Amino acid sequence: MGMKSEQTKERILQEAWKLFARKGFQAVTMTDICEKTGLSRGGLYRYYKGTGEIFSAILSQEYEIGSRMDRREGACVILEDMLGEIRKEILEKELSLSLAIYEYASLGNEELFQRINENAKQRWISLIEYGIETGEFKQQDPGQAAECILYYYQGLRMWSRVIPFEEQTAEYYVKTIREMLVPV
Amino acid sequence: MGMKSEQTKERILQEAWKLFARKGFQAVTMTDICEKTGLSRGGLYRYYKGTGEIFSAILSQEYEIGSRMDRREGACVILEDMLGEIRKEILEKELSLSLAIYEYASLGNEELFQRINENAKQRWISLIEYGIETGEFKQQDPGQAAECILYYYQGLRMWSRVIPFEEQTAEYYVKTIREMLVPV
Repeated sequence: MGMKSEQTKERILQEAWKLFARKGFQAVTMTDICEKTGLSRGGLYRYYKGTGEIFSAILSQEYEIGSRMDRREGACVILEDMLGEIRKEILEKELSLSLAIYEYASLGNEELFQRINENAKQRWISLIEYGIETGEFKQQDPGQAAECILYYYQGLRMWSRVIPFEEQTAEYYVKTIREMLVPV
Repeated sequence: MGMKSEQTKERILQEAWKLFARKGFQAVTMTDICEKTGLSRGGLYRYYKGTGEIFSAILSQEYEIGSRMDRREGACVILEDMLGEIRKEILEKELSLSLAIYEYASLGNEELFQRINENAKQRWISLIEYGIETGEFKQQDPGQAAECILYYYQGLRMWSRVIPFEEQTAEYYVKTIREMLVPV
């Protein structure tokens, strides 16, 4: 796929993300996404067959760290980059997809969420194992730490739509995860 | 209020909880709650003026610990009781109120959730401060620990409706919070 196509796909995902975050999953139509991206129906359908495919593509986007570990970058450096991304996301409450995730799950898409959850967990486990191996992280159960990192984040994402959040809430998240993984 | 009235109120909250967990907030009517409890409309309205008041009463139920700290019970004993309750709740995924909370919040009830969240946080902060004071808990920022405890729980509650949960997920929660608070 050419550069231009990749850019178009990226733009579709970005605009659709905002729509799903605002309206949930079911209320968003392919027509809405055409309007926001300026694509024709034919143009949009060339990339994605429906809103489910788009939503699934958004959720499957991952912060890639495998190659960074292959290059033997420091575990703490990778961790800080990930925490920086998460910190930004927590503060962008208007981009929380929690409601849309809930709706899409209730339509019987359990497998997608299991896969996404499993991938996210494996990514964290591999970083934690890597950090333990390099001696940068504390000895601990990587699966246990990964679950805290993921569900604590999900709780924040959901509640960021329920109550107003202060910057400190994002700082606390970053501090807690760092303290859990890295020796003082 | 007499014993019988208290029991009736308790029964209303229990039955309504199941309905809200299954259907969300908006789809539940006072008629549904009459049917489930066997109360007449007049009987139900004697206790609660509407579904909002019932939902608010459910969310405001708290695990009371103030008197236990006044009696100088051990912080670890109180903690283990609270973790035991939470563990049970996590595994009862069919009683998760996350979707109903989301819906009720979107109707403009931010203040209720701020109050509930603040109360829950204060309850945890008071236990953590108490445990630090008795020397049973590690020195730490009680507000930071309280946020992890609450949002990690909320993330679990939400995702328990999205993916199937294993018992281990609840065990991990309990272990993580215990390790965060109590020295090994």
